[in-house]
Amino acid sequence: MKTITATELAEHSSRESCWLAVHGKVYDVTPFLDEHPGGAGLLLKSAGGDATSAYESIHNPELIAETLTEEALLGEIDTSALPSSTLSKEEEAKAQDEPEYPPLSNIINVDDFELVAQKYLSPEGWAYYSSAAENETSRQDNARLFQILKLRPRILRDVNSISTNVTILGNESSVPFFICPTGFAKYAHPNAELNLAAAAGKEGVHEIIPTSPSMSLEQIAQARSSPSQTQYLQLYVNKDRSKALSLIRRAEKAGMKGLFITVDSPVLGKRERDDRLKALSLGSDAPNTGIAKIGSSTLLNAGLKWEDLAWIRSITKLPLVLKGVQAVEDAVLAYQHGVEAIYLSNHGGRSMDTSQAPVLTLLEIRKYAPELIRNPKLQIYVDGNIRRGTDVIKCLALGATAVGVGRPCLYSMTGGYGEDGVRHLINILRGEIIGNMGLIGATSIQELVPSMVNSQRAEMEIFGGVRL
Amino acid sequence: MKTITATELAEHSSRESCWLAVHGKVYDVTPFLDEHPGGAGLLLKSAGGDATSAYESIHNPELIAETLTEEALLGEIDTSALPSSTLSKEEEAKAQDEPEYPPLSNIINVDDFELVAQKYLSPEGWAYYSSAAENETSRQDNARLFQILKLRPRILRDVNSISTNVTILGNESSVPFFICPTGFAKYAHPNAELNLAAAAGKEGVHEIIPTSPSMSLEQIAQARSSPSQTQYLQLYVNKDRSKALSLIRRAEKAGMKGLFITVDSPVLGKRERDDRLKALSLGSDAPNTGIAKIGSSTLLNAGLKWEDLAWIRSITKLPLVLKGVQAVEDAVLAYQHGVEAIYLSNHGGRSMDTSQAPVLTLLEIRKYAPELIRNPKLQIYVDGNIRRGTDVIKCLALGATAVGVGRPCLYSMTGGYGEDGVRHLINILRGEIIGNMGLIGATSIQELVPSMVNSQRAEMEIFGGVRL
Amino acid sequence: MKTITATELAEHSSRESCWLAVHGKVYDVTPFLDEHPGGAGLLLKSAGGDATSAYESIHNPELIAETLTEEALLGEIDTSALPSSTLSKEEEAKAQDEPEYPPLSNIINVDDFELVAQKYLSPEGWAYYSSAAENETSRQDNARLFQILKLRPRILRDVNSISTNVTILGNESSVPFFICPTGFAKYAHPNAELNLAAAAGKEGVHEIIPTSPSMSLEQIAQARSSPSQTQYLQLYVNKDRSKALSLIRRAEKAGMKGLFITVDSPVLGKRERDDRLKALSLGSDAPNTGIAKIGSSTLLNAGLKWEDLAWIRSITKLPLVLKGVQAVEDAVLAYQHGVEAIYLSNHGGRSMDTSQAPVLTLLEIRKYAPELIRNPKLQIYVDGNIRRGTDVIKCLALGATAVGVGRPCLYSMTGGYGEDGVRHLINILRGEIIGNMGLIGATSIQELVPSMVNSQRAEMEIFGGVRL
Amino acid sequence: MKTITATELAEHSSRESCWLAVHGKVYDVTPFLDEHPGGAGLLLKSAGGDATSAYESIHNPELIAETLTEEALLGEIDTSALPSSTLSKEEEAKAQDEPEYPPLSNIINVDDFELVAQKYLSPEGWAYYSSAAENETSRQDNARLFQILKLRPRILRDVNSISTNVTILGNESSVPFFICPTGFAKYAHPNAELNLAAAAGKEGVHEIIPTSPSMSLEQIAQARSSPSQTQYLQLYVNKDRSKALSLIRRAEKAGMKGLFITVDSPVLGKRERDDRLKALSLGSDAPNTGIAKIGSSTLLNAGLKWEDLAWIRSITKLPLVLKGVQAVEDAVLAYQHGVEAIYLSNHGGRSMDTSQAPVLTLLEIRKYAPELIRNPKLQIYVDGNIRRGTDVIKCLALGATAVGVGRPCLYSMTGGYGEDGVRHLINILRGEIIGNMGLIGATSIQELVPSMVNSQRAEMEIFGGVRL
Repeated sequence: MKTITATELAEHSSRESCWLAVHGKVYDVTPFLDEHPGGAGLLLKSAGGDATSAYESIHNPELIAETLTEEALLGEIDTSALPSSTLSKEEEAKAQDEPEYPPLSNIINVDDFELVAQKYLSPEGWAYYSSAAENETSRQDNARLFQILKLRPRILRDVNSISTNVTILGNESSVPFFICPTGFAKYAHPNAELNLAAAAGKEGVHEIIPTSPSMSLEQIAQARSSPSQTQYLQLYVNKDRSKALSLIRRAEKAGMKGLFITVDSPVLGKRERDDRLKALSLGSDAPNTGIAKIGSSTLLNAGLKWEDLAWIRSITKLPLVLKGVQAVEDAVLAYQHGVEAIYLSNHGGRSMDTSQAPVLTLLEIRKYAPELIRNPKLQIYVDGNIRRGTDVIKCLALGATAVGVGRPCLYSMTGGYGEDGVRHLINILRGEIIGNMGLIGATSIQELVPSMVNSQRAEMEIFGGVRL
Repeated sequence: MKTITATELAEHSSRESCWLAVHGKVYDVTPFLDEHPGGAGLLLKSAGGDATSAYESIHNPELIAETLTEEALLGEIDTSALPSSTLSKEEEAKAQDEPEYPPLSNIINVDDFELVAQKYLSPEGWAYYSSAAENETSRQDNARLFQILKLRPRILRDVNSISTNVTILGNESSVPFFICPTGFAKYAHPNAELNLAAAAGKEGVHEIIPTSPSMSLEQIAQARSSPSQTQYLQLYVNKDRSKALSLIRRAEKAGMKGLFITVDSPVLGKRERDDRLKALSLGSDAPNTGIAKIGSSTLLNAGLKWEDLAWIRSITKLPLVLKGVQAVEDAVLAYQHGVEAIYLSNHGGRSMDTSQAPVLTLLEIRKYAPELIRNPKLQIYVDGNIRRGTDVIKCLALGATAVGVGRPCLYSMTGGYGEDGVRHLINILRGEIIGNMGLIGATSIQELVPSMVNSQRAEMEIFGGVRL
Repeated sequence: MKTITATELAEHSSRESCWLAVHGKVYDVTPFLDEHPGGAGLLLKSAGGDATSAYESIHNPELIAETLTEEALLGEIDTSALPSSTLSKEEEAKAQDEPEYPPLSNIINVDDFELVAQKYLSPEGWAYYSSAAENETSRQDNARLFQILKLRPRILRDVNSISTNVTILGNESSVPFFICPTGFAKYAHPNAELNLAAAAGKEGVHEIIPTSPSMSLEQIAQARSSPSQTQYLQLYVNKDRSKALSLIRRAEKAGMKGLFITVDSPVLGKRERDDRLKALSLGSDAPNTGIAKIGSSTLLNAGLKWEDLAWIRSITKLPLVLKGVQAVEDAVLAYQHGVEAIYLSNHGGRSMDTSQAPVLTLLEIRKYAPELIRNPKLQIYVDGNIRRGTDVIKCLALGATAVGVGRPCLYSMTGGYGEDGVRHLINILRGEIIGNMGLIGATSIQELVPSMVNSQRAEMEIFGGVRL
Repeated sequence: MKTITATELAEHSSRESCWLAVHGKVYDVTPFLDEHPGGAGLLLKSAGGDATSAYESIHNPELIAETLTEEALLGEIDTSALPSSTLSKEEEAKAQDEPEYPPLSNIINVDDFELVAQKYLSPEGWAYYSSAAENETSRQDNARLFQILKLRPRILRDVNSISTNVTILGNESSVPFFICPTGFAKYAHPNAELNLAAAAGKEGVHEIIPTSPSMSLEQIAQARSSPSQTQYLQLYVNKDRSKALSLIRRAEKAGMKGLFITVDSPVLGKRERDDRLKALSLGSDAPNTGIAKIGSSTLLNAGLKWEDLAWIRSITKLPLVLKGVQAVEDAVLAYQHGVEAIYLSNHGGRSMDTSQAPVLTLLEIRKYAPELIRNPKLQIYVDGNIRRGTDVIKCLALGATAVGVGRPCLYSMTGGYGEDGVRHLINILRGEIIGNMGLIGATSIQELVPSMVNSQRAEMEIFGGVRL
């Protein structure tokens, strides 16, 4: 491999020719500038220099190889010859100024973690985590639905002993919620997915590893506290079937117990708070919004079809889950295609703005395809602004097997809390579920029944024009 | 009994070993720290010293004996040897700074009392009284329901003479509302329940004494202005039947005229404003939220079942009321179990957050079990943010016999108003009821009929999935 | 008649004995203190002195004789011996500081007048005019209803020539709205009802004179610009039939063309902004709120019944209107009792708070008693926050003959505008009605039809439990 | 033609006699003062002097001849004798202070342009563009409707290739939206309609030229980038048929491909923010609001009727569109009268306030006249606060062929952006449409179907009383 000098590297520091060194290798990322999900600006910041530490703060080490073509790798460089990446004065000042965060014992509910995260995260991290598509109305609507679902507690039942155990895809979970896959976890904590894995293991919680984590899938798998700890893989099915196959094989080898195929994002949602930061950092050279993104992504597959499920089924025995079902018609199709579970989600409002709330889709299924509810051949999961034990209870009473918790898991690692934060989060939710099961008169998840939820206001919002 | 010295006592001033002196007796409260409903912090403040005045400012003298096990009583101490409990400099300054409160004549409606209370009460007192569970949405929803119930006044009826008399459990009341049981009344006034009893007697109003008042049940009973004054006892049925029996016997002896069995709190609601103050005062040692509380309480009985009602019935002739019915199914069950009354309540939003509003449960009963409405064998009471005469009128017109007023009674004692405040509160509500009965065209409670309430918007929120 | 000296008068300046001089006569108002609708405080301000100018600024000269018993008149006094009533320094300063008000041409809509009024009026005047009962939710709800009624304009109709003429009780009006009766008009302008009468005459608008105007009924009648100008009298039917009869005779003599019998206020609504000012000005001696007012009023008649209509009918040929009908049941009763018109009103939200909006009652009548709509034997009027031409159009399209405008007429006189202000107000509304009739495709009031109003949202709020 | 001196001209500078010089000609505009849509104030500012530059900044050169009668032209003047129109000191200062506007790349969504416009526009320009009639509730309601329409994305469809092409009145458009006709475009940019035409041509977008543009129709037609570029003419049908005919002939000659006959404004809506500015600038001499405007306009035709359509049809072969249909009854009438398209619009809330939202009228048509939906003989267009790609998608899925975008096109020219701004706007919307079509699972406009929209909440608002 060719050796490249620091001088040579430094000459390629513009939009026209942009070279970067990462882990002692030099890459030409010029053609990739506009495809970089974080925007060209972040690449240009390190143009003509060593990008290793910037890269590591966000990405999985293997990502660069998976993403760039072979031609992009130009040669090697002796990184000792490169100026060490140091904090700027500004960054140092900020580091010393760092606010102190409250002790975990003062974190009393899930929203408390969000307040810490808002202070702790960089503007980019906060924008990436907290934002949603366009006007962010779906995200708010997800929360609104839980507000208009009212509970009908039953009385005089012995609730001394309450169990929150559920079986998800055949695996025992101590609670009826799991950790959603989330991108760019390193904004929240350097150990990111390792924290999540360790906390999940110790608390008996399942987690779904994102397709593109900030560490390798194998590293995260090794962080399991015991071989029986349950992890699943989120799957964005690669356009290149050989790449898709290879990822599935890795998942099987790493002990993943199911594949959560993301189907609500054939293209990228328009997350404007992200875009706005990129526009600011790039000035007038910012990439066009919206349109340019279609089909250009390395992660998304705009061509994925129902027929592709058969291929996936043919190459693996792992249970399959469709993540992002948003209409009863697709729930029925999914059932007919034999997936083990459907996951009602609008991607936390991050894909299509003004899409209906997942819990409304659950009610839609109850109304139009009641045979899918609590069907032994199909589990149903739900997410979308789960912040309270009562949110969980509402979904379960209406027929979900479990719910997903996403952003809060990231928030709980911030403030330096790391693994302890995640465990505290889990226990807050677990405590709220147990306490509220006691108040509603249920000692097991099975005893959570639809008549415990006054869903009248929400039912007035179920689409009346469904034809199956 | 062993005699303990001040020095000895002072050695036990930590979480690991926490002794307290109260009324000349020394207790080891270490095992009780996490069970203390006010949080361990309050106990630790007096650890190794004399807690008598702190104890008296909140609790009934007998509570300590009822709560702690015999082993907790370590011995006696000569309290003259203990430093007298004095006000801290800060507390003195605060006492001198004390704001002046408006004359009662300037208090024009119920909410005015709340404004005074917010200023007068300590942070702990305000948090305890005003807070509700979790996001406090049920408390707000209770109020919302009264807003969407509209009145339909009838005209050209002679309303020169209006009577607000009702018969509650066979006892005459001058008004169709009563005083709810409330905890920790001493935050509001040193004479607490004595004020309530005296005011209630003079104004012809019934009251429900809490299971755990800040003075003894007998003291409160003696504060009646005449033997015919009506008091009831709120009953958290003790897990230990002998303790439950003994309390019922005391109630009978003290002349209580009915038992209001609380059924909406088998476990404690998660009141975060309370928890937050405790967390602050304890720093990183704060008890875990939520989960730890289940089953640990000395007051609550998570195992109370319908079958236990038969036992209670077998040991007393007092009328029984179920306080905290929240679904028509349980209203019907209660009727079948032969209780004298049901009390629709979500505990002022303090138990389960997002539980439906009690007045919505009343409409639910009207719809699904109309035979329970104005049934001679079953009375129905309602509470939940009753703040106006029109709120009372709405509940009565829809079928309730009487309504409960809780927080406002506490608020009305603050600002130094004491008994006079409570009487003023009663007369404000009485005046609003009379005035609005005049406006709606009713001269007696019987003339308040359902068609006087346009309940259309609320009826759209009645759960449609009830199966009886 | 006995002569009283200034010294003698001055000795009676307390709550225990309160004498006042008005127009050279001395009255003992001690027994009347608590009945004074403006509160005892206003009387006590002039206690032991000359109250003439204070009296005149608010009241009709005859009111004192009508209100007080004969024993109250103690004797005469030489008013030249009394200190002349002068402005306090504070009042002088305020008078010089007086803000300038915008030219009428800058007043573009009805709400603009309210902004002027808020600045111009004394705190008492503003509170009296703008307030409503209790939480003032009915007032807001009246406005809300107009917001949820949507219009459905029709196109391609010749609207070059638009007439807004209507016939009210057989009398031509140039517009489909009239001036409501309102109390204490002198707060707004010294010439009060004279302005209203003059403006109404010049603009071809009808008005309803209040039972208790700030000038005599005869003075107001004389202010008509021509004998054919139409005025009606609002009638609070006096408890004493001889007094009622005498007022009706005066009305007939003065040329009033109908009697608007107020039926929504058998007792006084609880207007807390008023009460609060009185409480402030009286300190701890303020009268009890609410209850004390029932039955004590000289104006209101809590005993008025349907049967009394027959008596009124028997003594006069004037058309009778029931003002304050709030339920379809009473609309039907009114029709059966043969009144010429019903006036749907909740007294601008000033009587019973949370009473349903009058326009909702109109929809209720459309639904349950459609035969009353556009019935030649019964006219229907509506009021309640009419602020826009579209509000008027909505009421008319749904079946009302005309609507009432109350508070804005008072506001339009403030800022020194007087008669010109009232005329400007009338023309703003007339202009909006004409313009919007053009836009909706109607050239006459008859062409305003129900299908021009999308009342769907409001219809969901019509009470479903009506039994006729 | 008579020659007039500067001195002579200067003598006519008042309301009583107001002369203006424009392009070397002197006009007596005294009788026209009150008819001037911009208010008399603007004319009086230049009274007795040269108004050429003020005139040009707003108007089409031909407008003056079209509007004024022949008698108004008094003679010629040597403009070199007139003081040159220069900026006042204030205006100069303002010009130097001019804020800098963000680069277009930072404009990420349609609302961003509105923020720029609010800063850039003169108070008059901002008021004219952004305001709506009366309380502006229809404008807000238009937006609310899009919020309550929720989307139901379908999954696992190949969306790699997405087309947004539609055929409007037989002409291909690259996107399913067009540029609405808007008045006074020169406030936004000196080149106004030229920018719009150029941008539309380059981006393959249709536009509707206003009846009264700020440049001549022919100039705008010449700005087309190719002869095949599609432009239509908005037609306010002149009361004088010969003038109407002449305009239609010019439209045909200029290559306009259809006539959009405005039918929602037989009279002018009451736009109070406009009126308020005029009132301010004129002080106490401001024209009466509302009523004076009926019938006085040179543009509007209050007498236009359904029968007139036959005449228009008889004189031209251009397709006819009715712009401003607001009720299903009129949609059916329009269809029966054989127009090529109806355009559901409440004029952006600028005509009749509280008129129902156009998208609600679309749902009304779906319910009561479904045969009009996707009918080959009738296209349906919709406008009213289209700000997002999802707004467009909702209208199309419910049966519209295309939607109109109005205010944003003006806003996008401000900040000096001109043609580039308009193109950026178009591409933002195009990008959002493509992206969201991908997310909802549609690759062509035809694949947008009603079941993709959960319209349940909006359907509850459809008027129930339609009789066809």
